Amino acid sequence: MEKPEASVDELCVHTIRFLAVDAVEKARSGHPGAPLGAAPMAYVLWDRFLRHNPANPLWPNRDRFVLSMGHASMLLYALLYLTGYPLSMEEIQNFRQWGSRTPGHPERDPEVGIETTTGPLGQGFGNAVGMAIAEAFLAQRYNRPGFPVVDHYTYVMASDGDMMEGISHEAASLAGHLRLGKLIVLYDDNRVTIDGSTDLAFSEDVALRFQAYGWHVQRVADGNDLRAIEQALRRARAETERPSLIIVRTHIGYGSPYQDSERAHGEPLGPEAVRATKERLGWPLEPAFYVPQAALTHMRRAVERGRVWETEWRRTHEAWARAYPDLAAEWEMAHQRRLPEGWDADLPRFYPTEVGVATRDASSEFLNTVARRIPYLVGGSADLSHSNKTYLKGLGDFLAGHYEGRNIHFGVREHAMGTILTGMVLHGGLIAYGGTFLIFSDYMRPTLRLAAMMRIPVIYVFTHDSIGLGEDGPTHQPVEHLPSLRAIPHMTVLRPADANETVAAWHWTLQYQEGPVALVLTRQKVPVLDPERYPVWEGVSRGAYILQEATGDRPRLILIATGSEVHLALRAQTRLEAEGIPTRVVSMPSWELFERQPPAYRHHVLPPDVPARLAIEAASPLGWERWVGDHGDVLGLRRFGASAPYPVIFEKLGFTVEHVVERARRLVKGG
Amino acid sequence: MEKPEASVDELCVHTIRFLAVDAVEKARSGHPGAPLGAAPMAYVLWDRFLRHNPANPLWPNRDRFVLSMGHASMLLYALLYLTGYPLSMEEIQNFRQWGSRTPGHPERDPEVGIETTTGPLGQGFGNAVGMAIAEAFLAQRYNRPGFPVVDHYTYVMASDGDMMEGISHEAASLAGHLRLGKLIVLYDDNRVTIDGSTDLAFSEDVALRFQAYGWHVQRVADGNDLRAIEQALRRARAETERPSLIIVRTHIGYGSPYQDSERAHGEPLGPEAVRATKERLGWPLEPAFYVPQAALTHMRRAVERGRVWETEWRRTHEAWARAYPDLAAEWEMAHQRRLPEGWDADLPRFYPTEVGVATRDASSEFLNTVARRIPYLVGGSADLSHSNKTYLKGLGDFLAGHYEGRNIHFGVREHAMGTILTGMVLHGGLIAYGGTFLIFSDYMRPTLRLAAMMRIPVIYVFTHDSIGLGEDGPTHQPVEHLPSLRAIPHMTVLRPADANETVAAWHWTLQYQEGPVALVLTRQKVPVLDPERYPVWEGVSRGAYILQEATGDRPRLILIATGSEVHLALRAQTRLEAEGIPTRVVSMPSWELFERQPPAYRHHVLPPDVPARLAIEAASPLGWERWVGDHGDVLGLRRFGASAPYPVIFEKLGFTVEHVVERARRLVKGG
Repeated sequence: MEKPEASVDELCVHTIRFLAVDAVEKARSGHPGAPLGAAPMAYVLWDRFLRHNPANPLWPNRDRFVLSMGHASMLLYALLYLTGYPLSMEEIQNFRQWGSRTPGHPERDPEVGIETTTGPLGQGFGNAVGMAIAEAFLAQRYNRPGFPVVDHYTYVMASDGDMMEGISHEAASLAGHLRLGKLIVLYDDNRVTIDGSTDLAFSEDVALRFQAYGWHVQRVADGNDLRAIEQALRRARAETERPSLIIVRTHIGYGSPYQDSERAHGEPLGPEAVRATKERLGWPLEPAFYVPQAALTHMRRAVERGRVWETEWRRTHEAWARAYPDLAAEWEMAHQRRLPEGWDADLPRFYPTEVGVATRDASSEFLNTVARRIPYLVGGSADLSHSNKTYLKGLGDFLAGHYEGRNIHFGVREHAMGTILTGMVLHGGLIAYGGTFLIFSDYMRPTLRLAAMMRIPVIYVFTHDSIGLGEDGPTHQPVEHLPSLRAIPHMTVLRPADANETVAAWHWTLQYQEGPVALVLTRQKVPVLDPERYPVWEGVSRGAYILQEATGDRPRLILIATGSEVHLALRAQTRLEAEGIPTRVVSMPSWELFERQPPAYRHHVLPPDVPARLAIEAASPLGWERWVGDHGDVLGLRRFGASAPYPVIFEKLGFTVEHVVERARRLVKGG
Repeated sequence: MEKPEASVDELCVHTIRFLAVDAVEKARSGHPGAPLGAAPMAYVLWDRFLRHNPANPLWPNRDRFVLSMGHASMLLYALLYLTGYPLSMEEIQNFRQWGSRTPGHPERDPEVGIETTTGPLGQGFGNAVGMAIAEAFLAQRYNRPGFPVVDHYTYVMASDGDMMEGISHEAASLAGHLRLGKLIVLYDDNRVTIDGSTDLAFSEDVALRFQAYGWHVQRVADGNDLRAIEQALRRARAETERPSLIIVRTHIGYGSPYQDSERAHGEPLGPEAVRATKERLGWPLEPAFYVPQAALTHMRRAVERGRVWETEWRRTHEAWARAYPDLAAEWEMAHQRRLPEGWDADLPRFYPTEVGVATRDASSEFLNTVARRIPYLVGGSADLSHSNKTYLKGLGDFLAGHYEGRNIHFGVREHAMGTILTGMVLHGGLIAYGGTFLIFSDYMRPTLRLAAMMRIPVIYVFTHDSIGLGEDGPTHQPVEHLPSLRAIPHMTVLRPADANETVAAWHWTLQYQEGPVALVLTRQKVPVLDPERYPVWEGVSRGAYILQEATGDRPRLILIATGSEVHLALRAQTRLEAEGIPTRVVSMPSWELFERQPPAYRHHVLPPDVPARLAIEAASPLGWERWVGDHGDVLGLRRFGASAPYPVIFEKLGFTVEHVVERARRLVKGG
């Protein structure tokens, strides 16, 4: 006879396993193998350690749980259902169906306890590092003796695939460097990937590798040994100086005829194998989706535990708020992602100068002006802070043991930076931005996309935005990046023309909460548009605006430009007007914002009866036909750049007044 | 007194250093710090080990040298000039100028010995792993007892930044797994990055990490100790079972006032610091670009050494060719990247079936038909070979000690796969392809771009190309990827509509040598277009073609579609014709190929006098205005997908006959 307690454990573990198996079976699609193997460790974590409150999934001090191995989604859904989150059995049974809350891979759904969207491997791992960074920052900022108002762990479950992806290296290396002691990763070491045994492609010593990163590493030899998992988790929590990796040797498809085989990974077991598995593990064949009352009762104790935890925490939080009302007010604002009263007083305003101002420098001035008024604005750069000008002067570096610092040094790790920013924003309590060169947005594509899918307000500062970066050459000169970013749904791209547009763009961005924003900035100096003369402020927030009207307000030609090319358009306009061609110049910092304007405004800026339109942008012209139309033209780049001083490159590649005038003339004649 | 030999060494090292310093100074732009610190190791490698022939940079059996830390480009240019490659002093003095062969970061230039384009960190590291893989494959295939016709090392110089990038993890982990004993990496461990000391962000134990990957790791404590570097390289070459990492502790900006400071990294030293550095290292202040005759004479001995090496090798190669004429003929063809006579005899041809054929399956049939006739066609998948259907049946797995295998298992490492494919193609002697899901092309963006910049024929097989992948949901459903790929200059994207278009697309691709190709394929089954009825063969190679003409050959409407949406267009056409709207259906597998057609053909397919055009593609509509014009419309996706069975998703997102007909009707009425 087993001990009663052990048998409840086993009952719970099997319940999780077979909810996953049955849901995959019913959907005729999904991944049964990982839940079968990893259910025990997930159960131990959720049953004995995870401090959460299923009745309030948004409790700020909850432990975060990230299923980086998103294909094991049913494991998470089963846990959420069993522990009493508002995720019904009906949803479980609608796994992978249209409109369900149980999609193929977990999609962020704060109301039911899904912290982040995962599936593309390694992303969740990086998000979790971001959550742990946020926790460390907020704990340092808000905790006071006797008032640990921020004090939680971040747990991750990760697979072989997560470990193979480069992002896991970047994020783990940084987490080790930062000594994020409250980050704990359970590694589902099942040694099987989609193609078969990891022997085919994966023989590294993961333990040694993580030791090299400065992690605390443990092994659990038997993934079904609940006690060993529990002890390992206990030791991991006790280790406060290093993040922890617990390597749990599991068996994919445990108990099924396909155990230890890739056949168990990504498709339903099929009715016969389901039967065989249930028989082998002593589970009733019917009904499907069977949940023994004892298991449900046991796991639903999470609700009461959660109520108590949150109640205790609220008591602490209230006492803290009484003792430190200013801090509490700030906390409240930060957690609602609102901005403090007067945050935008005294924004920098730029006036025309001889030499001009690089928009990255204007960005720096903006950041350094507002950062002191927004204490929960935190940012950094992927080893390019001097170049991106993202550094917040005098506000400290975020380093191990100095978690109050406002400047994060991500290292040469753009992808990690992206996933970490996402994790920080998901955690809540701060506003996060990160900088790199626009070209290196390529290294971050997978995480840009997920931030857009989650519609969370991550801010990317992409400088060195064109061939205008000059001598570093085509390897560093973006060409396809503007259209590539514009193609991502829910991503807003802003490429301001000058210092004042940059301030307006940042001002808009900090107030926007509906999705990520890419601020695209120059390395080179560009002229400053006189803010007394040009309506930059309102203009930027509308996406495009009439910067300079044609003589007599009746344009025969419209020049549309973004960023540094706006100044070329203005210079060409002078020449065209002198030639008797009434020319309007439209500055168009953001397609997305312009698209959101009412048609009347859009037709006001780009009147359908002015078909002669020339777009000027030092980037791939893909998509500009939308704005210039059948009778328009685009001066863009259908090639990569070149290494030379930037004025030479602009000239050689046709970004000259002469060339613009020539192309424009041709349009007017043809039109 | 130093020994005379030592002083020539020192002279050479300093010559390299100051060519770099002076070139950066003259260009007023560049990176002097890394060449100052890393010149000794580069010198030892090139002077004592690198088997190359400056008079014939294309000698097939040369050792490959990859400067992954591309910002140290002047180090490479100095070595090329000094060892006698056709790279003149004038080019050195034109560093970073328009039209020079000495751009800011090295750009592949086989005629002067630049093996690959580097700069974005980590890329060269991955390329080198690909070169070592190619060497191992070719050695296994072509070498015979007594005839080591393929037998060379691949050397890399890499920096802290390379080590931080995730790609270095992926590539190194795979290289260790594959036991690539002839890959040797010199790590310029200078502990300074752009933002400052690596203490800010990088404290991992790189030695331990590479041991975890199964590498042979050595340390050289003093980067100026030529003897120690030499001994380490000797041991690395002797280690045949594991790739080698040599960690060389260097000092960025060695000898300059900015030694060990980030100030030395990315900008000219300035005249005063140049003077101070020259004084400190005992170098004449004038002239700039000073090359002592003794140094030049010493280093130019590489020309004679190279002549002897290549001559010896040619002798071996000729004897081998006589002994194995068939092998030699194949080698020749492979190295010219030609295809064997009759390679495309018996290509699969598909006829309409009830159930249809997924284009990924047609791709598999094609590959498995031609692979036996093209013994140097090698490919793999990033752990999705069962899904991508890229596996070459019966042709073996490329594994440690089984380098004859034609199937490479890249693991869940898309980025490494991309860089490795590039390295394989750069090496020469084989045709390489790699598969993953289209969504994961995001993980490979930096390497896709560099392959396009180099215009080399890497082949990407991107399956699961739309919401048509179904239940896995939006995290796995590409939306923005088609326009994002189309935006890359020199990239050709092919999205065939059915099995026969797929065969035609592959047929074209294997013959194309001017740049990378992305084959975009369905997961789901799609109908087969009757090849007796539709001109798929010629059509695909022209990018777009009239698939089905309107009644009376006088269309009032054109439906343009790609991939799986072509069948929707055909079904809608039937309905529209029945309603009396003469409708043409254009299949457009490739924008790029269509753009290359003469205007007459393009106007034939899309006549300007038929403005009512509806494009149908289950992707972001960005850019389609180009083809549909001001009076056209695009049925695309301005949102992410969803998790559900794929017919449901297509229906819910508007990809139905009814919706197409409705949108088309509106167009015709409006037009």
